[in-house]
Amino acid sequence: MTFNFLKKKKNRIHLDYASTTPVRAEVLQAMLPYFSDMWANPNAIYKEGMAVRAVIEGERTQLARMLHVRPEDITFTSGGTESNNLALIGYVEKLHESGRAYESMEVITSRIEHPSILETLHVLEKRGVCVTYAPVNAEGLIDTKIFETLLHENTVLVSFAYVNSEIGVVQDIKKISRMVRRWNERHGDQKIFVHVDACQAPLWLPCMPDMLGADMLTLDAGKCYGPKGAGVLVHRHWVSLAPILLGGGQERGLRNGTENAALIVGCVRSLIVAQKEWETRASRIQKLREHCIALLQKEIPGIIVNGSREARVANNINISIPGVDTEDATIWLDAQGIAVSTKSGCATGDSAGSTVVREISGDDTRARATLRITLGEDSIKEEIDTLVSKLKTFLHTMQLQSSK
Amino acid sequence: MTFNFLKKKKNRIHLDYASTTPVRAEVLQAMLPYFSDMWANPNAIYKEGMAVRAVIEGERTQLARMLHVRPEDITFTSGGTESNNLALIGYVEKLHESGRAYESMEVITSRIEHPSILETLHVLEKRGVCVTYAPVNAEGLIDTKIFETLLHENTVLVSFAYVNSEIGVVQDIKKISRMVRRWNERHGDQKIFVHVDACQAPLWLPCMPDMLGADMLTLDAGKCYGPKGAGVLVHRHWVSLAPILLGGGQERGLRNGTENAALIVGCVRSLIVAQKEWETRASRIQKLREHCIALLQKEIPGIIVNGSREARVANNINISIPGVDTEDATIWLDAQGIAVSTKSGCATGDSAGSTVVREISGDDTRARATLRITLGEDSIKEEIDTLVSKLKTFLHTMQLQSSK
Repeated sequence: MTFNFLKKKKNRIHLDYASTTPVRAEVLQAMLPYFSDMWANPNAIYKEGMAVRAVIEGERTQLARMLHVRPEDITFTSGGTESNNLALIGYVEKLHESGRAYESMEVITSRIEHPSILETLHVLEKRGVCVTYAPVNAEGLIDTKIFETLLHENTVLVSFAYVNSEIGVVQDIKKISRMVRRWNERHGDQKIFVHVDACQAPLWLPCMPDMLGADMLTLDAGKCYGPKGAGVLVHRHWVSLAPILLGGGQERGLRNGTENAALIVGCVRSLIVAQKEWETRASRIQKLREHCIALLQKEIPGIIVNGSREARVANNINISIPGVDTEDATIWLDAQGIAVSTKSGCATGDSAGSTVVREISGDDTRARATLRITLGEDSIKEEIDTLVSKLKTFLHTMQLQSSK
Repeated sequence: MTFNFLKKKKNRIHLDYASTTPVRAEVLQAMLPYFSDMWANPNAIYKEGMAVRAVIEGERTQLARMLHVRPEDITFTSGGTESNNLALIGYVEKLHESGRAYESMEVITSRIEHPSILETLHVLEKRGVCVTYAPVNAEGLIDTKIFETLLHENTVLVSFAYVNSEIGVVQDIKKISRMVRRWNERHGDQKIFVHVDACQAPLWLPCMPDMLGADMLTLDAGKCYGPKGAGVLVHRHWVSLAPILLGGGQERGLRNGTENAALIVGCVRSLIVAQKEWETRASRIQKLREHCIALLQKEIPGIIVNGSREARVANNINISIPGVDTEDATIWLDAQGIAVSTKSGCATGDSAGSTVVREISGDDTRARATLRITLGEDSIKEEIDTLVSKLKTFLHTMQLQSSK
């Protein structure tokens, strides 16, 4: 594995890789032919069109093989947000089309999901669907005991993130899906499906839907060194979906609009590289994460680590520094050459703090004082050390100022 | 203007540019920095994020200036299909949210629109919206006299393509929007909006929404030498829309999902180049189109030109050769090195002929025998001459075979 594919910026330390990642050089290289050279419409029946079609289907097959699913289980989308929308709206609308009333459908999720899940469910709620939020404990983990009691005859779908994008907690999806399977077995002709948002997972955890017990799985290239604007919804062949973007019949009618072969190639290549080396990558970066947490705890007394320490993705450090305006800290660190985040990159324009941390802690002060540090596969110890030392300086400066 | 930016393939003649186009070398060049260099999330508050944000907003402002609209009137999408879906669903759902019943809403369109309009309207129809189809004459033009009589108090939206993607007919959008404006003036507080699908227009016609009288306008980069998977919905500031992809609040909540700066830059640059030189480009290519039609009529007796000859986009030649299987012709021409199409690139997998031609002619034989020849900005006379000569050979061969 080479860690230097990225020309790191001089005097800049990037520690916000959960927000997005650069495109790997080899992935960009693989994408380039499809902009100005092999550019034909893959739906055309002449040579150039068929060549692009063959590339797209080849990529689909490769990804399917890696994920242990059929090629037709894979739909390429414009990213994780669209995949999550398609999974939830697509499945509910399909059931509605077949005659099931919205009011007799329930979706189970949690209050710490990504906005592309929560906002989409709000829309479905307005149509009449019941949304139930499984409780999450102080560590950020779904309370599976209570979750199991929530399953009932109206439940059609369960949707949880594999890795929480803010606090990095890894849910026990296997256990959750086993509970759903048991329920399904006991209830004959009824069927609850499991959707897993795995956008933050491919670099650090295995993502095969069969292993997770997922009927649907969302992936996003922009979070694992592939292009932004490219994602996947895996939907096993027993799941029928209605499209959310209507049109010319592309992706078997499920995702309409002319396919962008460059993005599809980039998406698949990035996911394949991510999954191939996840174990080596995760084991190296997890050590760095532990170093970072230990150093923070030693150097900055009073910090709180948000989310489980054990059930945690390799690259996520999320802390609260009670009483500190961490948005100020982020801006100050930026001026010192360090990029970190207060919360999820997608919770734009919201200055009310982290809803995820508020949810698990019930503590507003803690929710308003979060700092998210997320490592990339080429992050190194020196960067962590510099971050902690600078953060210490910031807090010291603040203390001096406030004691004046 | 240079016409040789495209390395034309040796021994290949491409005459299907309405289906899609390659990315211009200068456009690709402008996109490249945003994959692996300036790759930060534009919603991040540190230096790298703000730099990408500044690029995206700069591009938005440039496009807005060219189109004579405000920057906030522009929403970047994943392409023409998504833009069309957002215009129709977004507006109807916004009205529905504000309390208007689906049953009291009517959308006027025509039966020769793109599937991303017609299929989307089918979904709205299922929700209770009334869809009315304005009649189209034998030339493929909206019958504006009848259209005007269709406007009534339930009408909320009128949606027509500027240029038909199959037969290249250019609708008199100005006249249509004037009729709507007159109706609006006579009906005080009621308001009908005009949406124009201009995907096929930017290379050949002016696209300013104010000039067209459009409240919403769809543009697609992949049809005018920009990247596929990138488009725009222009919605003037007096039009309120509901999002169709829910999530983290990007594009002022109207188009969620992390923005792909590369695609946005490519999209805007391609649209600007397209519009800048449309007149020179259209005047040159229109001569070639007329040469092609004249030559076809001279060399192949019995062909029918589909769609108006006068109100026609510069690059479209659409003919029927009654009694001939034009799908066979397309495949045969492909083997001879020529890429043409039978109909729209988006009407995938449908072997029942052209619905557009069936609609305007009421003639099934004619609808099953269409050939669409669409020129690019670097098309030349020799390519047309070769096409016509090869097509003649094909028809001759067919005749010999059938008389055996």
